[in-house]
Amino acid sequence: ADPLVIAGRTYRSRLLIGTGKYKDLDETRRCVEASGAEIVTIAIRRSNIGQDPGQPNLLDAVPPDRYTLLPNTAGCYTVDDAVRTCRLARELLDGHNLVKLEVLGDPKTLYPDVTGTLAAAEILVKEGFQVMVYTNDDPVVAKRLEELGCVAVMPLAAPIGSGLGIRNPYNILTIVENAKVPILVDAGVGTASDAAVAMELGCDGVLMNTAIAEAKNPVLMAEAMKKAVEAGREAFLAGRMPRRRYASASSPESGLFF
Amino acid sequence: ADPLVIAGRTYRSRLLIGTGKYKDLDETRRCVEASGAEIVTIAIRRSNIGQDPGQPNLLDAVPPDRYTLLPNTAGCYTVDDAVRTCRLARELLDGHNLVKLEVLGDPKTLYPDVTGTLAAAEILVKEGFQVMVYTNDDPVVAKRLEELGCVAVMPLAAPIGSGLGIRNPYNILTIVENAKVPILVDAGVGTASDAAVAMELGCDGVLMNTAIAEAKNPVLMAEAMKKAVEAGREAFLAGRMPRRRYASASSPESGLFF
Amino acid sequence: ADPLVIAGRTYRSRLLIGTGKYKDLDETRRCVEASGAEIVTIAIRRSNIGQDPGQPNLLDAVPPDRYTLLPNTAGCYTVDDAVRTCRLARELLDGHNLVKLEVLGDPKTLYPDVTGTLAAAEILVKEGFQVMVYTNDDPVVAKRLEELGCVAVMPLAAPIGSGLGIRNPYNILTIVENAKVPILVDAGVGTASDAAVAMELGCDGVLMNTAIAEAKNPVLMAEAMKKAVEAGREAFLAGRMPRRRYASASSPESGLFF
Amino acid sequence: ADPLVIAGRTYRSRLLIGTGKYKDLDETRRCVEASGAEIVTIAIRRSNIGQDPGQPNLLDAVPPDRYTLLPNTAGCYTVDDAVRTCRLARELLDGHNLVKLEVLGDPKTLYPDVTGTLAAAEILVKEGFQVMVYTNDDPVVAKRLEELGCVAVMPLAAPIGSGLGIRNPYNILTIVENAKVPILVDAGVGTASDAAVAMELGCDGVLMNTAIAEAKNPVLMAEAMKKAVEAGREAFLAGRMPRRRYASASSPESGLFF
Repeated sequence: ADPLVIAGRTYRSRLLIGTGKYKDLDETRRCVEASGAEIVTIAIRRSNIGQDPGQPNLLDAVPPDRYTLLPNTAGCYTVDDAVRTCRLARELLDGHNLVKLEVLGDPKTLYPDVTGTLAAAEILVKEGFQVMVYTNDDPVVAKRLEELGCVAVMPLAAPIGSGLGIRNPYNILTIVENAKVPILVDAGVGTASDAAVAMELGCDGVLMNTAIAEAKNPVLMAEAMKKAVEAGREAFLAGRMPRRRYASASSPESGLFF
Repeated sequence: ADPLVIAGRTYRSRLLIGTGKYKDLDETRRCVEASGAEIVTIAIRRSNIGQDPGQPNLLDAVPPDRYTLLPNTAGCYTVDDAVRTCRLARELLDGHNLVKLEVLGDPKTLYPDVTGTLAAAEILVKEGFQVMVYTNDDPVVAKRLEELGCVAVMPLAAPIGSGLGIRNPYNILTIVENAKVPILVDAGVGTASDAAVAMELGCDGVLMNTAIAEAKNPVLMAEAMKKAVEAGREAFLAGRMPRRRYASASSPESGLFF
Repeated sequence: ADPLVIAGRTYRSRLLIGTGKYKDLDETRRCVEASGAEIVTIAIRRSNIGQDPGQPNLLDAVPPDRYTLLPNTAGCYTVDDAVRTCRLARELLDGHNLVKLEVLGDPKTLYPDVTGTLAAAEILVKEGFQVMVYTNDDPVVAKRLEELGCVAVMPLAAPIGSGLGIRNPYNILTIVENAKVPILVDAGVGTASDAAVAMELGCDGVLMNTAIAEAKNPVLMAEAMKKAVEAGREAFLAGRMPRRRYASASSPESGLFF
Repeated sequence: ADPLVIAGRTYRSRLLIGTGKYKDLDETRRCVEASGAEIVTIAIRRSNIGQDPGQPNLLDAVPPDRYTLLPNTAGCYTVDDAVRTCRLARELLDGHNLVKLEVLGDPKTLYPDVTGTLAAAEILVKEGFQVMVYTNDDPVVAKRLEELGCVAVMPLAAPIGSGLGIRNPYNILTIVENAKVPILVDAGVGTASDAAVAMELGCDGVLMNTAIAEAKNPVLMAEAMKKAVEAGREAFLAGRMPRRRYASASSPESGLFF
């Protein structure tokens, strides 16, 4: 009824989740299930998706026939590294074209290197990848990434792993208002209300990892996030009441029965 | 599994809703249903619950055998008015003891008159009422109301009908930490994330009216609020990740596969 | 040119400061001087203003012929204690009538007991005291205190000693808009910008203690606070620009010379 | 005692102001004077600094022997335009090398085009300009601009002309912590407290235009801003008290005299 469409594919869930930082693959699996996510992102450079046959394979927890896998370039600080990692992912995943591009600029903040991100996006789009792209919350950069042909733009809410929530709602709102491709908040969500806020701003989806994986009870938090994303989306569609300092002075007095 | 208990009765839903400002009784009914609320509050002085047999009866939309009715004293600016309204409600509702007390101090802000509220609460508790009480967000007043025997304390998040959200989370948190009775945020919620924030602070429930009734699509907003309250509660129980300026510098680099 | 008038006396400075928590009386004296304060508040129950002749006398640091002394009832949790403390102050200070009333409700939050505060204010006003009164940020309570005859109403910005800044600007603004007596923010200011915000909301003054006394360099912070209060007052009087999401689209393009 | 040093020159004032949007040159002059600014920025493409001999000359209001002029490239949307404008400024101002670079990305938000800004900065530095550079609040971009040889980096607080204040204090703080050149907040300040906040975050200065020019009383606001910048700087140097939810429970009770 209100599907998320990315690169021509249709999803019911607007919550995308990562697979890092879980205790074990079983916890990963249970959290993914509880979240209702249909798109699951995988840090190609840190995950075993078959490269090491003697180790547990992440794809057992998130089978590709059930989930849309979204290989990402976490840990890449150069255009070359990011591009190479995407090519590797395509090879490992039998021609899979959908990737999440990250070109990081700084190991402390994990902020993107936007210049490198733009350069890598351009290369990857030309090579036929469907690029979902992590970026800062600058509206001009976001628009440029869309113009380069990225299939979704994913501004951060706050630094990766910070849990600080939507630091600059105005920027996210401006990005959403300008966009013709899906905008998904990526990074910085810490709890359920943060996810709801992102959706109320009109974002098309939210991607998160740490907020679930580092909750005391990750499975319960995954379920909370599922509901929060749905709640935020419905609140956005429902059209919230205006903010005002007070209710209109007259209304509370009108219609007294006694 | 995680019930809300008020005055000895057990509820699955932690969302309480009002019945004012709807287009008609059918909209009221559909919103109440979509919200999943089990406790529904009624402004006795403004609602027809049978006093006027020729007019539509609110109880047709929210039948007492299905919902816990919570008569409230909206529109009362004196102790006497509030107490009298509660007695009237008890009479109209065949001995029903559960009430929501409001003694308003100011027709503009609709802030409570806390002195009057304390006085009325004392009288009503003595007369055997089970008093849920609307108050400001002052932790000392909240505790006093609990000590007087109120069965639930309901601090405002922001002025009634303002939709401004939780203006002072520290105060709500302090009230929650000090309380032995349920704390429900009453007034000021404007959209789904506001409700989630209230629950994440540890509140036992949320009561709202305008946020649903004045949404462009009230029924959809009611459903959003249902999910938001559940999401916020689950996030609270799940135990959120800590906020930090950045992810720890080492973690994102660990475990590289290539 | 823009004097603060309290109880008929005129002051140039809108910064009032406390005398607690300093290293020694010399630091107290230097901070008071750097702050430019003309009204200095003294916790009667904790300060030696002559009761103990063998100890350093606070009045040596803040001589009554140079400053308006404002004895306060810090540490009083009952109406009786507060009233008695004011009477004692009047006696110790030779008929001095100006007092700052605090009736605390809770040793943890140091929130006022507003019921007790109202009762004590009524008694003190009748006994001829000029009562400046510490209260929460509830607009209804603030108005009631004014109506009882208090000469200034002093809502908290945040808990005493917290340094959290103006937690609920809407409430402070509403109190200011409703008031006919001076409104001074009392408690919660942590740094210079907090004081400026209070003044920009239209407050007539700010009282602080911990923000200066617990700064690493209290004298420099006192000077910062002096400037911040003046800056905030002038910005209030100057009438700030409207907030808008962007500058008007046309203006930045107009008037190009080349 | 605490000078601002930019490109080897020393300034007492940390407030830089623009010259646009004033009623006339006399108002410009009086505001510049009231602000105490020593560096004054001029939109070369929109100002007459002698190009048109028949029109009022801005340099009469801000004589170059008294102020450090900072020609800026406001209105430039391409690298070429910005570079050319700087060269023109150097010519008009007899070899003046200090410029403020802006390469705008979007006429609505007036956000910078960071890619273009980086490119233009590189060219200008090579041509011997001393480049102060307007940028977004991305810490990675800010660092890159410093590494290219810019003499000061000037992140926005909020969109130019918005008056929204410091939207993302964490980002500004991170930029400050990483920097070896002066960081000045440029754009978005709306009132005095905003300027104080910028300085309390450790910024070396603040540049503003609209906040003064569009105040109801621009001269008074200029004076307010002067004090606010000084207050914020001193508060930063003084070292603020820690934020805490409450004062320590014991301290308020200690040392009672009665």
